[in-house]
Amino acid sequence: MSLNTFGRMLRVTTWGESHGPAIGCVIDGCPPGLEISEEEIRVELERRATGRSRHTSQRREADDVKILSGVFEGRTTGTPISLFIENTDARSKDYGNIARQFRPGHADYTYFKKYGHRDYRGGGRSSARETTMRVAAGALAKKWLAQTHGIAIHGWLAQLGEIRCDTDTQWDTVNDNPFFCPDPARVPELEAYMDKLRKSGDSTGARVDARATGVPAGWGEPVYGKLDADLATAMMSINATKGVEIGAGFDSVSQLGTEHRDEMTPEGFLGNHAGGILGGISSGQDVTVSVAFKPTSSLRLPCRSIDMDGNEIEVVTKGRHDPCVGIRATPIVEAMLALVLMDHALRHRGQTGQ
Amino acid sequence: MSLNTFGRMLRVTTWGESHGPAIGCVIDGCPPGLEISEEEIRVELERRATGRSRHTSQRREADDVKILSGVFEGRTTGTPISLFIENTDARSKDYGNIARQFRPGHADYTYFKKYGHRDYRGGGRSSARETTMRVAAGALAKKWLAQTHGIAIHGWLAQLGEIRCDTDTQWDTVNDNPFFCPDPARVPELEAYMDKLRKSGDSTGARVDARATGVPAGWGEPVYGKLDADLATAMMSINATKGVEIGAGFDSVSQLGTEHRDEMTPEGFLGNHAGGILGGISSGQDVTVSVAFKPTSSLRLPCRSIDMDGNEIEVVTKGRHDPCVGIRATPIVEAMLALVLMDHALRHRGQTGQ
Amino acid sequence: MSLNTFGRMLRVTTWGESHGPAIGCVIDGCPPGLEISEEEIRVELERRATGRSRHTSQRREADDVKILSGVFEGRTTGTPISLFIENTDARSKDYGNIARQFRPGHADYTYFKKYGHRDYRGGGRSSARETTMRVAAGALAKKWLAQTHGIAIHGWLAQLGEIRCDTDTQWDTVNDNPFFCPDPARVPELEAYMDKLRKSGDSTGARVDARATGVPAGWGEPVYGKLDADLATAMMSINATKGVEIGAGFDSVSQLGTEHRDEMTPEGFLGNHAGGILGGISSGQDVTVSVAFKPTSSLRLPCRSIDMDGNEIEVVTKGRHDPCVGIRATPIVEAMLALVLMDHALRHRGQTGQ
Amino acid sequence: MSLNTFGRMLRVTTWGESHGPAIGCVIDGCPPGLEISEEEIRVELERRATGRSRHTSQRREADDVKILSGVFEGRTTGTPISLFIENTDARSKDYGNIARQFRPGHADYTYFKKYGHRDYRGGGRSSARETTMRVAAGALAKKWLAQTHGIAIHGWLAQLGEIRCDTDTQWDTVNDNPFFCPDPARVPELEAYMDKLRKSGDSTGARVDARATGVPAGWGEPVYGKLDADLATAMMSINATKGVEIGAGFDSVSQLGTEHRDEMTPEGFLGNHAGGILGGISSGQDVTVSVAFKPTSSLRLPCRSIDMDGNEIEVVTKGRHDPCVGIRATPIVEAMLALVLMDHALRHRGQTGQ
Repeated sequence: MSLNTFGRMLRVTTWGESHGPAIGCVIDGCPPGLEISEEEIRVELERRATGRSRHTSQRREADDVKILSGVFEGRTTGTPISLFIENTDARSKDYGNIARQFRPGHADYTYFKKYGHRDYRGGGRSSARETTMRVAAGALAKKWLAQTHGIAIHGWLAQLGEIRCDTDTQWDTVNDNPFFCPDPARVPELEAYMDKLRKSGDSTGARVDARATGVPAGWGEPVYGKLDADLATAMMSINATKGVEIGAGFDSVSQLGTEHRDEMTPEGFLGNHAGGILGGISSGQDVTVSVAFKPTSSLRLPCRSIDMDGNEIEVVTKGRHDPCVGIRATPIVEAMLALVLMDHALRHRGQTGQ
Repeated sequence: MSLNTFGRMLRVTTWGESHGPAIGCVIDGCPPGLEISEEEIRVELERRATGRSRHTSQRREADDVKILSGVFEGRTTGTPISLFIENTDARSKDYGNIARQFRPGHADYTYFKKYGHRDYRGGGRSSARETTMRVAAGALAKKWLAQTHGIAIHGWLAQLGEIRCDTDTQWDTVNDNPFFCPDPARVPELEAYMDKLRKSGDSTGARVDARATGVPAGWGEPVYGKLDADLATAMMSINATKGVEIGAGFDSVSQLGTEHRDEMTPEGFLGNHAGGILGGISSGQDVTVSVAFKPTSSLRLPCRSIDMDGNEIEVVTKGRHDPCVGIRATPIVEAMLALVLMDHALRHRGQTGQ
Repeated sequence: MSLNTFGRMLRVTTWGESHGPAIGCVIDGCPPGLEISEEEIRVELERRATGRSRHTSQRREADDVKILSGVFEGRTTGTPISLFIENTDARSKDYGNIARQFRPGHADYTYFKKYGHRDYRGGGRSSARETTMRVAAGALAKKWLAQTHGIAIHGWLAQLGEIRCDTDTQWDTVNDNPFFCPDPARVPELEAYMDKLRKSGDSTGARVDARATGVPAGWGEPVYGKLDADLATAMMSINATKGVEIGAGFDSVSQLGTEHRDEMTPEGFLGNHAGGILGGISSGQDVTVSVAFKPTSSLRLPCRSIDMDGNEIEVVTKGRHDPCVGIRATPIVEAMLALVLMDHALRHRGQTGQ
Repeated sequence: MSLNTFGRMLRVTTWGESHGPAIGCVIDGCPPGLEISEEEIRVELERRATGRSRHTSQRREADDVKILSGVFEGRTTGTPISLFIENTDARSKDYGNIARQFRPGHADYTYFKKYGHRDYRGGGRSSARETTMRVAAGALAKKWLAQTHGIAIHGWLAQLGEIRCDTDTQWDTVNDNPFFCPDPARVPELEAYMDKLRKSGDSTGARVDARATGVPAGWGEPVYGKLDADLATAMMSINATKGVEIGAGFDSVSQLGTEHRDEMTPEGFLGNHAGGILGGISSGQDVTVSVAFKPTSSLRLPCRSIDMDGNEIEVVTKGRHDPCVGIRATPIVEAMLALVLMDHALRHRGQTGQ
């Protein structure tokens, strides 16, 4: 796992800048025989896309994904699968005025420090545009997990700013609102909050939770390829993530052992503080993960900063930005969960059994 | 990064079971020329060791580490460094009565499900004994970081059960108490809490924080080898970890963008919600990480469980166990932070510059 | 190094089938700042291309390579470089008659055994078409090596069937004939031989040699990342390779130690039986490698075989094929040599020095 | 695959210097349940050991291997297997006189150039002593391949200097002579040749061949994890290797396609020029490999060289050396063949099938 490739047995390599001609990925290691179509991938991409509600960036990309290799007569062949999407709605001129300025909280400063140059167009490689290909690859992983193991993956918005969204949950409504909020009664509140936030020019953080149901016991490779450790790196690699929890997460800090340990009976576990993972290996329970997203740093509200020559400036970001990246993060979290699980499914096969 | 090897340019492979004859590790990729002695490693091991206060497990291991290769005339040679420690105080008979029982919250169930057999002696490979070698390897990484970049790494106990320990901090006292608590005034309270807990037979969770000072801007490899993503996997791979935060962590969820973004001036940043990492690359600020540890699951208090035949049982764990693994986790968190940073230092050299 | 990704610090992932819509690769890990253009890559591709003389396959591809990411304002940015070429002259119908037959000596049988299905169109992924992207990536590596280290890479046809081509060498003429033959006097002989071979319907093997000049001493990572071991896997991964030699190669078998060892003087080595590599590390001498290519197995001359049902058949291959793949192999061998050296240059930086 | 770790699913990390206190390896990724004992490993080590005949180095090591982890109650557990051997017969003082001299043909010059220091004792890490652990790990791989797939691995000395040994073969006699010569009638000739060589102070090269029988069709991962490419890197990583061939090898250069291609019938292939590998994937035939070893460069016959200050010197090597490393190379070639095959067996499981 390194640079622009994710996974060990199932390896996804993503490429492309936000304002370049195209983005894409290569999925290597998918077993042969899986039925997959461009249309199935597009359905997932549509869930992540901007410009579908007033609460996200207004950039409108068709995300018309093409499968260029690795699929023959509708099925994967075992060779690398190349996915390709043209960028059609990039507006690089929006960025002209900040071409030599750093935006606090943004990666442009650290990219400059690392690489010694500046790709000022829309965040270049650090843009959330890159997550498009995670969702595309995740669509394939989700289907494979469902077909081969009956695994289902579900994510939802658990908190937006100060608003908790998971106090009352109706799972089948998650995809019915632009927030992936599981509580339909909360949606008007979220809309009002976002409208107010957008008008103010500010942004906010969010928490997204996800769950995989049907994962068999035994996946995960102690001690440095543990399932939870791989989930942690997967989630932390998503833009704007600042925290990851498995199961009870930080609540474990103040729990007692008698409270945290999930008792077992012949009929199954009596709780799931473990989040379905013990010793880095799946237990057969639902695998649960929670991810903290920071508020977007590209704001039209001015702030103190410096330019490439180190001079003091006031920076104001124009362009089209999400006031809360967490709103669109649910499909991305699901995708990363699916990719980690499919990778471990394949690894498990190799490492065990005679 | 996989199975029992951690890191990419600096690769640490650990081996050994809690109750086997010995444990060890191989550190591969350390540049030549670093002065290092067995004694320097022992100093760090002593910080992690059990049996040094009444608040940890009473197993007493000398942890008399030997360097078997890769060091010649007191300096690393660039070849693999083999570290070796004999196990001298294992009491396998303590485990006889649970040889066929599963302990809720413990890895013995999932190891059995994965590997199809049972190493019932003291947790086998899933024991905290494995972390000894992380600390040993981390001692080398700490020294290298200090000598080559002036980087200093400090960890501390931030919370024990319900008790916050970092409200008033005196950093130079952290190593003066068995808890790594930065607030000396809290130590009596912690001792009383632990004494009570030990008597009750229960255990508790903890939060450990750590900071690296002096990390230059530019380390980290977007988008799948980000510095924060590698820290996340490093920390989540430690036994009993359930959550990882960078910088503001889960507090980011309810922050506004204007609050979270760390403004910049020619004299430096005006805050560090980012935890020293932006876009997965170090910013030159302190790198900060927070880790949640669950309460130990090996308790003498009985609970419901099953045996290897699936029968309902009541399980009671004897043996010598930590009532709070978080107490000894500070040196381990520091070690993992050091190993990730040294790995990235070496990776950075290769990937950038002409 | 695995599946469809080559290299460790410089990682090239190739994708695409011979008769799919396109082929491409992602080059990850190239340091920022290298000036590179599509035109420079096309120059190298033209050397490998089919249809440029009567002695190779008559398939004519424009190989109009596009850079889709990782290059901004003419220079590499440090982010993944996506190269893309449309396939324009595939004739899949040529393969209809062998869709269910196996061609002896060809990969179609083993691909079927591995993946359980058949992509009968032009060899699919096992086609020499894949090597196009090696040459494209190699063009970048060659330029980087030349600019950063003054390294020059030269390959040539050393033997074609029974005809030795390197007895009299004029290095500056290698690119003046379609065989990459270094002895212009041999070219008419080669042409006559190939014309006769083509008429007969048979094919022949070849040997290609290559040399890198200017490689500094110290590259290579004992004991499992040795420079010669990486060259061996690089060359053996090229279609139709059956043997690899470094320096004296198989001649070493019957040499005496006093004959083989290259004596040293303050002015340099007195020989190069070592091929510029000792103990897996470059010595500062020219790195030399020799590669054996088998004769093409797709022949119009009938032979005994079986079909997908295991029935005995006689197979005759139509389509457009090279009567000697070795003729076009010189740029491919050069490319792999360049990719291995650039990878080691980057690895060396990380692993050594304080 | 890198530095001191070999393999992808089955990963062997070796450590230790020729004249350090011990050598060892960690075998990670071996599936649980394999019965293995120290005694079984010792049997293979004895085949490789020096000092068992007058034709090899007279260093006598007991090679008393210990299994320190990963095996419980006689069976592998799935956790890392640590093997350990003390060095007992190193004579470092033999090397005092060449501590600052470079031996032509030896790795001491390149190690110095790479690492900037000199471990002059017996070759340090570049010594053939390292191959001990390859044979130890290979013993495990051989047993696993035999038990799970019925695969048998056999190697033999094919040529020693000018003497061909494989013209008349009696496979069951290979282990009956100290050369691993398959033709008992040749043994007196080999003994006489070696006696003469030893007296002269010179050394000679050799060729070792090996074959794996019973490998199923379908192992190997195009295009950069091909079975033959992995065999090439495995063999080239052995000390003193200068060439590797699969099947017909360099003979392919002058073969015609009609001669090289192995025709197929419902009863099987009619030849094996392919060496059991087509398109990088096993075909079900015997996998055959041939390896060229150069003559030892540590000779007592003086030659021109330089010292660490670049001064002209005459170097004479004392110490105990093999006059032909190829004599003991057969078990090492077999071990590397076994390790590659076991790695691919595990990889194959993960990458294919639903």
